[in-house]
Amino acid sequence: MLDGASRPAVLICPGGAYLSCSDREAEPVALKFASMGYHAFVLRYSVYLNKDEAFQSIFGGVERREHTVFPAPIRDIGKTMLTIHEHSDEWLVDTDRIALCGFSAGAHNAATYSVYWNKPILTDHYQVSEEKLRPAATILGYTLSDYLFMKDTEKDEMATILFDASVTWLLGEACPNDEKLVEVSPALLVTDKTPPMFLWATAADALVPVGHTLRMGMALSENKIPFEMHVFEEGPHGLSLATQATADSKPLVDQNAAKWIDLVEAWLLKRFAIELKEEVRWS
Amino acid sequence: MLDGASRPAVLICPGGAYLSCSDREAEPVALKFASMGYHAFVLRYSVYLNKDEAFQSIFGGVERREHTVFPAPIRDIGKTMLTIHEHSDEWLVDTDRIALCGFSAGAHNAATYSVYWNKPILTDHYQVSEEKLRPAATILGYTLSDYLFMKDTEKDEMATILFDASVTWLLGEACPNDEKLVEVSPALLVTDKTPPMFLWATAADALVPVGHTLRMGMALSENKIPFEMHVFEEGPHGLSLATQATADSKPLVDQNAAKWIDLVEAWLLKRFAIELKEEVRWS
Repeated sequence: MLDGASRPAVLICPGGAYLSCSDREAEPVALKFASMGYHAFVLRYSVYLNKDEAFQSIFGGVERREHTVFPAPIRDIGKTMLTIHEHSDEWLVDTDRIALCGFSAGAHNAATYSVYWNKPILTDHYQVSEEKLRPAATILGYTLSDYLFMKDTEKDEMATILFDASVTWLLGEACPNDEKLVEVSPALLVTDKTPPMFLWATAADALVPVGHTLRMGMALSENKIPFEMHVFEEGPHGLSLATQATADSKPLVDQNAAKWIDLVEAWLLKRFAIELKEEVRWS
Repeated sequence: MLDGASRPAVLICPGGAYLSCSDREAEPVALKFASMGYHAFVLRYSVYLNKDEAFQSIFGGVERREHTVFPAPIRDIGKTMLTIHEHSDEWLVDTDRIALCGFSAGAHNAATYSVYWNKPILTDHYQVSEEKLRPAATILGYTLSDYLFMKDTEKDEMATILFDASVTWLLGEACPNDEKLVEVSPALLVTDKTPPMFLWATAADALVPVGHTLRMGMALSENKIPFEMHVFEEGPHGLSLATQATADSKPLVDQNAAKWIDLVEAWLLKRFAIELKEEVRWS
């Protein structure tokens, strides 16, 4: 450890269907990344529900709320990147090495940011050079990636309600055309500027089909973006760390899937290794 | 351990582009599965080259050789399954729990068998009930899965030579039509009878693109077949165990990718757990 040297950072976007931000996918995950020697930040980006609104309120129908309509969620990430850059000397952050880590809708937000980070939608909006917005890597847990696929996929009742409602709060209208859906489908927008990615999901996820993760991997592969992907057979949506540190019920503990955090640690080390002294020095 | 009780088995198909069977993907892998408590068999299925023919001989052009033309390679697996069933009492094999494990072309053979095991091409040919041919699970290392994808994918020179030659030895003709290519494309033939699968590959594989593994996963997902998938970022084609046990050169050692064998051990345990006594008994 070099005292006073800057370190890489991980910026975490919890899931919650753009309705709320799940605590289970926030601070406990930040502590994990901090324990690897990295800075960790949690971003509670703009979501649909106010603090005093219950989840059930969406069953009565949803309305357009400007603060959640795309590109608002990715601009929240952009603003956070700029805040970290602004304070990097004070906070000792190595701004060349800031990774995003999202879960579910937070993964969708991180993935979407990762295909837009260098575009006018962010650079012109904030009037900054793209270097201040560049993510060095992106980690996606049970992500959504393709709204065309989602539209055409067989869904259970809850998934149908969430899909129909989510297009309203993400796109501001109940029945957007395919062109609009593509705009929020990172699997359809990967470029050679998309950062390296680590993806994980469970094949048994009944809420967000694993096809989203596979499609994102396919797009990365076709664009020759380095990536790693782990699909565990079992486990429901929303596993977070899949340990008692994040589970609020037994089904959210899974020994197999819990290996993702060790796998991402090994993967991050490829590009986030912290410089160490060659020799032990006693001072 | 129950003395005298039967145990699950793993049948290993080494890779080698249907030209030869790679020793690096044979016995050392069998030893790993044996160390997990399972029986392990290695199948050296029919391949194009005779023992005295050098790999380079294919550069002079290839001919149709009946013993490698589909469905010969999957019938080799079928015959092996029958042999294991025939000797199961003597060898103490739990015939309900025989997994296939293939690498590269051997994975293609195992995957293809896994979509054909219950079809007349095997049951009629051997005049047996499908139960004697059923694989309980299939493990695919850097598999090929989709010859239409392969045909349309940008290839380097070596991959082009191998692709052109391989359709001759697998399909018996140099320019088969798409219908023929589909017949040997397991990703296009998955059914609800396809066994659970564990897939792994590296995203950096320059010889067999990771798209084959992703497409196989997509097909399994669409058919609701349980599966687990691990795509490691780095590492060339042909890693086998990715340790010094199987590498003949440094690039074939990779600490990250080497985790696949632990991951498959955990995955196999879900369905291959060996029955244990409830209590310790001193006899």
